Amino acid sequence: MISRVLSAELPEHIGEKVTIAGWLHRRRELKSVTFMIIRDRSGLAQVVLPPGAIAAFGEETVLQVEGLVVASEQAPGGAELIDPVLTELSGPATPPPFDLYRPTLTATLPTILDGAPTTLRHPRLRAGFEVSAASAAGFRAALDRLGFTEVFTPKIVESATESGANVFAIDYFGRSAYLAQSPQFYKQAMVGVFERVYEVGPVFRAEPSDTARHLAQYASLDAEFGFITDHFDVMPVCREAVAGMADFVGERAAPAMRLLGASLPSVPAQIPHIHFAEAMELISRATGEDVTGEPDLAPAHERWLCEWSLREHGSELLFVTGYPLASKPFYTHPDPGRPGYTNGFDLLFRGTEIVTGGQRLHRHADYLAALASRGMDPAPFAGYLQVFEHGMPPHGGFAIGLERWTALLTGAANVRQVTLFPRDLHRLSP
Amino acid sequence: MISRVLSAELPEHIGEKVTIAGWLHRRRELKSVTFMIIRDRSGLAQVVLPPGAIAAFGEETVLQVEGLVVASEQAPGGAELIDPVLTELSGPATPPPFDLYRPTLTATLPTILDGAPTTLRHPRLRAGFEVSAASAAGFRAALDRLGFTEVFTPKIVESATESGANVFAIDYFGRSAYLAQSPQFYKQAMVGVFERVYEVGPVFRAEPSDTARHLAQYASLDAEFGFITDHFDVMPVCREAVAGMADFVGERAAPAMRLLGASLPSVPAQIPHIHFAEAMELISRATGEDVTGEPDLAPAHERWLCEWSLREHGSELLFVTGYPLASKPFYTHPDPGRPGYTNGFDLLFRGTEIVTGGQRLHRHADYLAALASRGMDPAPFAGYLQVFEHGMPPHGGFAIGLERWTALLTGAANVRQVTLFPRDLHRLSP
Repeated sequence: MISRVLSAELPEHIGEKVTIAGWLHRRRELKSVTFMIIRDRSGLAQVVLPPGAIAAFGEETVLQVEGLVVASEQAPGGAELIDPVLTELSGPATPPPFDLYRPTLTATLPTILDGAPTTLRHPRLRAGFEVSAASAAGFRAALDRLGFTEVFTPKIVESATESGANVFAIDYFGRSAYLAQSPQFYKQAMVGVFERVYEVGPVFRAEPSDTARHLAQYASLDAEFGFITDHFDVMPVCREAVAGMADFVGERAAPAMRLLGASLPSVPAQIPHIHFAEAMELISRATGEDVTGEPDLAPAHERWLCEWSLREHGSELLFVTGYPLASKPFYTHPDPGRPGYTNGFDLLFRGTEIVTGGQRLHRHADYLAALASRGMDPAPFAGYLQVFEHGMPPHGGFAIGLERWTALLTGAANVRQVTLFPRDLHRLSP
Repeated sequence: MISRVLSAELPEHIGEKVTIAGWLHRRRELKSVTFMIIRDRSGLAQVVLPPGAIAAFGEETVLQVEGLVVASEQAPGGAELIDPVLTELSGPATPPPFDLYRPTLTATLPTILDGAPTTLRHPRLRAGFEVSAASAAGFRAALDRLGFTEVFTPKIVESATESGANVFAIDYFGRSAYLAQSPQFYKQAMVGVFERVYEVGPVFRAEPSDTARHLAQYASLDAEFGFITDHFDVMPVCREAVAGMADFVGERAAPAMRLLGASLPSVPAQIPHIHFAEAMELISRATGEDVTGEPDLAPAHERWLCEWSLREHGSELLFVTGYPLASKPFYTHPDPGRPGYTNGFDLLFRGTEIVTGGQRLHRHADYLAALASRGMDPAPFAGYLQVFEHGMPPHGGFAIGLERWTALLTGAANVRQVTLFPRDLHRLSP
């Protein structure tokens, strides 16, 4: 390895000769002195040179810098490097068409996304991905603790699963196949094997709508488990997963959150919940608009409910339970006590739905009846339905969209800002 | 939740009335007594009934069983349930066309794979996936410790990446696109952002060959990092990853390994290595067949080298370094001291290559030269090459195929046995 200390470690080496290595983040040539800021994975380091000494290197050149560490109040971390000897480690770098050293990148989102391999080096853009990585790790840790097993399911499937719309078609050795919209059927089948499973993996939606919160590929944090009574057993596990995500962000990505000026939600031991019908009545009363007949929450309703939850329960998180059958997929378990409603739920956070989940049907006959009542042909689901003939316990689960969660957590206005190389209706590269 | 104890916990409850829940794994009706074996995620529990009592339930019915725990030398774990009260939790189960209670499933691999949602419930089949889950967790833990950041990269790409062959074409909103064969280019670009990254995710290969070790989709454990001197800095990190995988299997999946009669390799602090050219000379001398002109190792050579490594170094793992340029992709860094050879390596384990890795090119001009010397058009790689114009440190990485590793670790003859729902030339379901 190239022997070096990280820039964050400089203050521990005052008075010593050390080597650092990283990207030339910024050059500042003053009359009597030249400053060079070196960026590495731990942060920034200041290097002091005689005037004119670094004209040869463009920004983003990768440099190895040997020098003497001295205390300096003006330098990041309180230490800087003097008397440097510079060695270029990359090819001669062309400075990118962005000033990565400015506090925020001044470019439009499409320009930032086109230049993603380079723009993501900006500390504020990078920070979002530290939050996203910590969140995924927190999700897994929470479910590992609860005895869940990780699974890896197929992303190429024989027939469109959840619904026939919004699927990507693929040429599979001359046969037609599709990209999986979710691991729904596989994770349910795996309840029969492991009882409790989770998967962190890509899902694909051919979303024809070009909104700030839809992507053609996103990372889905999926969980499913058996031996529940109803969806009120699924919600506490979902709460543990979300709490685990927030905890890990607090532990592993605190500097990133600070840099973004973002704050963690406090996740209540019991996240408050409200039934869909009751929510619609509240909204109707409060807004004067009668929404009690609607089958689903509109974005404005989700925002209203989140404000209500914060006001009423002091919680940025709110479960909405019992969504109408019409707004939930066919595998959703109906509410046995309330015709037309289900044992499905959503979790709202800062104005937006981030989790959808619920109890699923577990009896073979119920699946056939549910498909028939929706006028759906059971034939394409034969492989899926097979497992329910051979004994499945009452079960349920949920799915969290990693990018949407990260966007809401970090205050990103568009989910694409926290997606490494987003894919959407118009974007297929880089 | 359905209140219950797990079958493995029964011995702690002798003399108490408890409830268990799980699948009816086996019924044994003797003259004077009927035994019922209940399977849950922790193992098996024996329930004693009066004769004829369970005729109503087919195998794989999910049952809740309340009863008194008594000590019993014949029962699994030394305890069994008597005076049971049975409640059916699933629909009436149709017994699957396999005897899941037999020590091994007596069916051909295609039959087992066709029935995967049910056959995977067999303890021996399930065991392989416990090993695979533990391995993935161990990979992540090892790299987390070394300061790596997890990334999630696009699986839909604009142009065939590594090579034009063996890619799946997809209809992307009316444009043509492909499924990613590897996260290679993205993980390299992310070295510019995080210095050290890993990804655990699916990769897709339209493999026209139908062998015991090839899949159309597999889980790739990918790592990439910067500020290396050469591939001899990549190999120790690869060693840490493999050691972490073996450690986690030992910690989390020991019963699964025991059930399979499988043994963990001891991973040496330094895995032995041999240069490709030297390996070919050894093989030529030993076998009498001159293979010194060959550009790659044949499967028989890999097996021979593994036997040699075990004999010579007492290691089941062996790095082969310096593969010829012709057998490695264009982004592989050549060996500056040995024309025609590279700074690429493979890791062999129990007769088969499980890891491929190496140092990559990091200078823009070198990429253009490498493509030109292979007669490849640089245009489709423009988005990829862009990042090397803006300062990339010397870097390298590796990729481990999770299923292949798991197969070799557990002694599975075919990689499909340890793939949840394998995809290959002929198989697209379930």
